[in-house]
Amino acid sequence: MRSAMKRAAMTIPLLAVASAFDPRAAVDPLPSWNEGPSKRAILRFVDGVTAPDSPQFVPPEERIAVFDNDGTLWPEKPIYFQLVFALDRIKALAKEHPGWARRQPFKAVLEGDMKALAAGGPRAITEVVMATHAGMTTDQFRERVERWIATARHPRFDRPYTELVYQPMLELIDYLAASGFKVYIVSGGGVEFLRVWSERVYRVPPERVIGSTIETRFEVRGGEPVLMRLAKADFVDDGKGKPVAINQFIGRRPIAAFGNSDGDLEMLEWTTSASGARFGLIVHHTDGEREWKYDRTSHIGKLDEALDQAARRGWTVVDMKRDWGRVYPAGGR
Amino acid sequence: MRSAMKRAAMTIPLLAVASAFDPRAAVDPLPSWNEGPSKRAILRFVDGVTAPDSPQFVPPEERIAVFDNDGTLWPEKPIYFQLVFALDRIKALAKEHPGWARRQPFKAVLEGDMKALAAGGPRAITEVVMATHAGMTTDQFRERVERWIATARHPRFDRPYTELVYQPMLELIDYLAASGFKVYIVSGGGVEFLRVWSERVYRVPPERVIGSTIETRFEVRGGEPVLMRLAKADFVDDGKGKPVAINQFIGRRPIAAFGNSDGDLEMLEWTTSASGARFGLIVHHTDGEREWKYDRTSHIGKLDEALDQAARRGWTVVDMKRDWGRVYPAGGR
Repeated sequence: MRSAMKRAAMTIPLLAVASAFDPRAAVDPLPSWNEGPSKRAILRFVDGVTAPDSPQFVPPEERIAVFDNDGTLWPEKPIYFQLVFALDRIKALAKEHPGWARRQPFKAVLEGDMKALAAGGPRAITEVVMATHAGMTTDQFRERVERWIATARHPRFDRPYTELVYQPMLELIDYLAASGFKVYIVSGGGVEFLRVWSERVYRVPPERVIGSTIETRFEVRGGEPVLMRLAKADFVDDGKGKPVAINQFIGRRPIAAFGNSDGDLEMLEWTTSASGARFGLIVHHTDGEREWKYDRTSHIGKLDEALDQAARRGWTVVDMKRDWGRVYPAGGR
Repeated sequence: MRSAMKRAAMTIPLLAVASAFDPRAAVDPLPSWNEGPSKRAILRFVDGVTAPDSPQFVPPEERIAVFDNDGTLWPEKPIYFQLVFALDRIKALAKEHPGWARRQPFKAVLEGDMKALAAGGPRAITEVVMATHAGMTTDQFRERVERWIATARHPRFDRPYTELVYQPMLELIDYLAASGFKVYIVSGGGVEFLRVWSERVYRVPPERVIGSTIETRFEVRGGEPVLMRLAKADFVDDGKGKPVAINQFIGRRPIAAFGNSDGDLEMLEWTTSASGARFGLIVHHTDGEREWKYDRTSHIGKLDEALDQAARRGWTVVDMKRDWGRVYPAGGR
């Protein structure tokens, strides 16, 4: 009898541990998502492709999910955060470049004259990006991004940018990964900017991050091989470029795609038009109080054609204001 | 007493199962490798980076291993197998292109005149490759490679190409994967050719295969999005291109690299010149009986500078004849 009690006493904590790790346990995987059609659609899709007896079952090696970054995983307002990094670098480098004080677009950046910078168009932006992203090794660039991301703070929220990622999307990434998905980020932003912090912030490792690139060149300097970043655009991972990059990097068509703007339209079409269970989702920025409210006429993150297509193609449109119980994480991650 | 016996009887098979799955059990992970310095160097490196108490321990997320394909994982003689695919396709397409019978380099291919084809140089090869690899969707190309790889046989060994992969290297890939490595193939060959069968033959999924590319374009045809393969070279994943591609695709420096020719030199340098435990290995083709014997003067798979560097940099040079107990698998995989 004593021995049976002992066994029972030992068995109870073991069962408790086992149930804590049981994926079927009734723990809500998406606590920051309010109950409603968006959350239900996500749960239904994941159940359908993962339950072994489901007619929509997809083997784990084919469970590829792709996420846009700017506006989908973190904000893109008032301007893309990577552009803030570039502007901050211009200011930091100014004393090494005395001529910049008199030369556009650098003059505009140094004077904080965003109107003058915008007047220079895409060419001015490219010049600012190349001056801050090229002419150094990949290791040197990584160090600069690391230093910036550790100290820079968003002007409106006064928090580090890495604490402005969307909590509901972090939960979604974790939920998909726990459900056997390979989660990729497919961003219009620079891939080497994003990879510096993607593993820490999103738990997405560098090899699962696809993005825009500038050319790099292998060189041996002082006996050490390095990769030099050149001031030459290589690939723009936006719009029609996204399916091209997905095919080039992953070699398989995703079964789920998550975006927020017309730049994600082709990625969503490519993902959802094949046979079998497919899932498309658009984050609609409807929350001017906690975040921003914009769509069809926005200069950054314009969502127009993709919103029309969403209705036609059955993509889930997340109403940020209605669907998200919270927007940002309570603390850093 | 009876109950104790019962428990003992139940315990024994459980222990047997546990020991079968114990990675420390004395099962040789590389049975096709003869005992000697090459095998010892591999085992020592993997032990060093995986044992938690080792001063050379590397966390799993940083355990990246990169393998060349032609001449490292399967043969490259008498000509690259992908070129055989291209020549076979020219013959299959000839009746749709009656002009080819009179036009070089197609005439040479159709007449089996390899000397005339070689006389056309890289330009002739490029024309043959583009005529057989471009002008179709990615899905159509995949189907053609699948059909070819299922039926084509190597002229010398009369076996399917997929059964001519090197058994010792298959064991090495499995051993690294079981030791927490992320195993990548980084090939000068076309990535979409290799990805069709890499998962089945090497157990390396498409997203872990990096290779040379032609341009692709996103189009909507009859309401369906497709990726068209264009007759335009995009990236040559050879020589200095390999570290560039590794950085672009993986975003992390590998800790182990495996190659066989001067085309792998920069990949080996890039991998082994950083700090911490690093491993470089070159497959030296020394076995004219079971495979081929070639190095410094070979037109395909020339191994000259990388062989000199191996001695200087402490890379392991596999003597195929001495180090490999068998070359090919007993049956298909």
